Amino acid sequence: MGKTTKKNAVVGQSGGPTAVINQSLVGVIETVAEYGEIDRLLGARYGVRGIIENNFIELNELDTGLLERIADTPCAALGSTRDKVDEEYCRKIFNAFTANDVRYFFYIGGNDSADTARIVSEMADEADYELRVFHIPKTIDNDLRVTDHCPGYGSAARFVTHAIVGDGMDNASLPGIKVDVIMGRHAGWLTASSMLARHDENDAPHLIYVPEAPTSKEQFVNDIAEVYSRLGRCLVVVSEGMVNEHGKGWNEQLLKMTHGAEVERDGHGNIQLSGSGMLGDCIANFAKAEITSRFSKKKLRVRADTFGYLQRSYPDSVSPVDRIEARLAGRKAVEYAAADQPSGSVAFRRTGNGDDYAIECFRAELKDVARITKPLPAEYINEAGNNITEKFRDYVAPLVGELPVIAKL
Amino acid sequence: MGKTTKKNAVVGQSGGPTAVINQSLVGVIETVAEYGEIDRLLGARYGVRGIIENNFIELNELDTGLLERIADTPCAALGSTRDKVDEEYCRKIFNAFTANDVRYFFYIGGNDSADTARIVSEMADEADYELRVFHIPKTIDNDLRVTDHCPGYGSAARFVTHAIVGDGMDNASLPGIKVDVIMGRHAGWLTASSMLARHDENDAPHLIYVPEAPTSKEQFVNDIAEVYSRLGRCLVVVSEGMVNEHGKGWNEQLLKMTHGAEVERDGHGNIQLSGSGMLGDCIANFAKAEITSRFSKKKLRVRADTFGYLQRSYPDSVSPVDRIEARLAGRKAVEYAAADQPSGSVAFRRTGNGDDYAIECFRAELKDVARITKPLPAEYINEAGNNITEKFRDYVAPLVGELPVIAKL
Repeated sequence: MGKTTKKNAVVGQSGGPTAVINQSLVGVIETVAEYGEIDRLLGARYGVRGIIENNFIELNELDTGLLERIADTPCAALGSTRDKVDEEYCRKIFNAFTANDVRYFFYIGGNDSADTARIVSEMADEADYELRVFHIPKTIDNDLRVTDHCPGYGSAARFVTHAIVGDGMDNASLPGIKVDVIMGRHAGWLTASSMLARHDENDAPHLIYVPEAPTSKEQFVNDIAEVYSRLGRCLVVVSEGMVNEHGKGWNEQLLKMTHGAEVERDGHGNIQLSGSGMLGDCIANFAKAEITSRFSKKKLRVRADTFGYLQRSYPDSVSPVDRIEARLAGRKAVEYAAADQPSGSVAFRRTGNGDDYAIECFRAELKDVARITKPLPAEYINEAGNNITEKFRDYVAPLVGELPVIAKL
Repeated sequence: MGKTTKKNAVVGQSGGPTAVINQSLVGVIETVAEYGEIDRLLGARYGVRGIIENNFIELNELDTGLLERIADTPCAALGSTRDKVDEEYCRKIFNAFTANDVRYFFYIGGNDSADTARIVSEMADEADYELRVFHIPKTIDNDLRVTDHCPGYGSAARFVTHAIVGDGMDNASLPGIKVDVIMGRHAGWLTASSMLARHDENDAPHLIYVPEAPTSKEQFVNDIAEVYSRLGRCLVVVSEGMVNEHGKGWNEQLLKMTHGAEVERDGHGNIQLSGSGMLGDCIANFAKAEITSRFSKKKLRVRADTFGYLQRSYPDSVSPVDRIEARLAGRKAVEYAAADQPSGSVAFRRTGNGDDYAIECFRAELKDVARITKPLPAEYINEAGNNITEKFRDYVAPLVGELPVIAKL
């Protein structure tokens, strides 16, 4: 088949990285090579920014050994972007595609990336330009609709769970009140995964707060005081996106109180939460001030850790299932393209659970995945709104893999 | 042999936990059982506090399976303490020993614990009471004198190195300036270990600051600006104990500036550094303010993460060598007791390096290990005082074990 009849493809990575996002990239690269109908596979440097700036790497004919090492390397090998993509930006992307005779676009990212994929795909339809756009899910937040779960989540959850197991034993060794802040501005999936660290009733985490369960400051303080008076210690896991009884972010309230105008905001006006320990420190200071008076102990030990970027990049706790599924998601996108399927997003359906855990892939519509986040369902949150139910263990355990066995004297 | 001729022993754990401190505990327990000359082995709950409060667990005749699971559990299974131990406290410990007919004391801890061991041992000598006190080294700070290195350090260094590998790839994916704060108030051993994450010249960490190399704010800002202008990104690893050109802690300067009287201090008047992201946030804000003006970019991305307690408790990155050596240190303490050696501290001597890495144990004098910390030698710090030399790799690599292979496109 002559070169002119073949088609060019672009692959890109977007948003916050994960420990397995390169598995999806390599899944695309190796399946494109198997497919044989694609001429040039262009890797966009730094996500869509590379497309509009014509900054590509040729990904054909890479050595298999290198590809496997790339797959096992955390974070986006192509580079990623935080660019806010609007209609005008999408127009530039589309123009770059027509200029380079690009007929396939594989985009690895979250719901914003799914929306970019949707818009560009619709532009192509309107212009009667043959273009298939496949979104490959990736987010440690696990907040994409339609799919059972997202590649990247299992490994982040594995890191969080191990961290809480360790920090829980630390809290038992040197008792006090400990607050651990977990990523997830709008959804509590990652924060909820910390419940896996609990083997016995009195194990950490003792309290878990997710954005889906609004919590007043009063309840928060009462909850901690109750655990502390019972166990002499308390480990609290909070989502960076936890909200008060009026639906307002704790970060907004606490940080404004203590930091005023200094607080950094992103393009959407949101307070910068990642890469800062401020929220955790504010919560610790607040809890200390409120709870100290309730106990006769002169000095209450209250500490906070913010797990930060390690949640999405730590290379020594990759979930085996996540690793395989991230690769599969990349492969499936190309298989859909090869099977001449319309544009869409790769999604997982769980077909077995527990020891028989299994998934199958299907193509979801881009519009059903784009933009809107999927919250943690109410059935996974306890009635008091301060913990995660055992039912969630069934959901999350297979995604995380084996956890350490903890023993006590 | 009748029960009355046998002797009682106490074992305790002290200070900040490590991922392998229970290996040393189990090393003591199993070797005491093999030795056969000790009647009761009492585990002091929460370190020396358990001794003076008569809070003990009987550690004889524990199931081998349970012991192995305890050994693999991070943090102090007996509980630990931050109690400041003075002469009067030591007197209470000694009195508790005579009351319980305790003739051996195995104490797992850092240089403060070695000092406690020394004082109690001297009190016994003065009172002509037969007591052997053996200190078993434990610290993620690696700052004990005499010994080549300390159990607990290798696993903490392994966590830090993996974290910097991941965060370095994150920083390459989404370029900006990133500050990572590592534990170590007085010594830079743990911070220095981050250099293992660097495979190529331009890899993270780009700059490393340890307390042994005083750094002015001016140098710090110039260093970061130089790297950022060259690479478009910069990952900086700083020790929580970094000091300025006058030998004053950066934490003192920066936190006083921004937080004033709010700052929490411990019994020694030191600012609380662990369990708080304040120092990292202050450094990030300071760096951002100072560096932004040098670059035309409107918005400089500066973030900070403080690795916090995970460094000493994370259960999924234990160094294989550290795991074995921590167990060995516990075993050796009892072997010295069984061989009727005088009180002392277990120390390691390196007898081979690289692929032939090996150590042997010897008994050090308690007074030579107590109190004073061992700084990072000058040969491991580069001339500019902003990085760690390749020579340090030879020292630290065998203690950490295999690291991830990182690949780039």
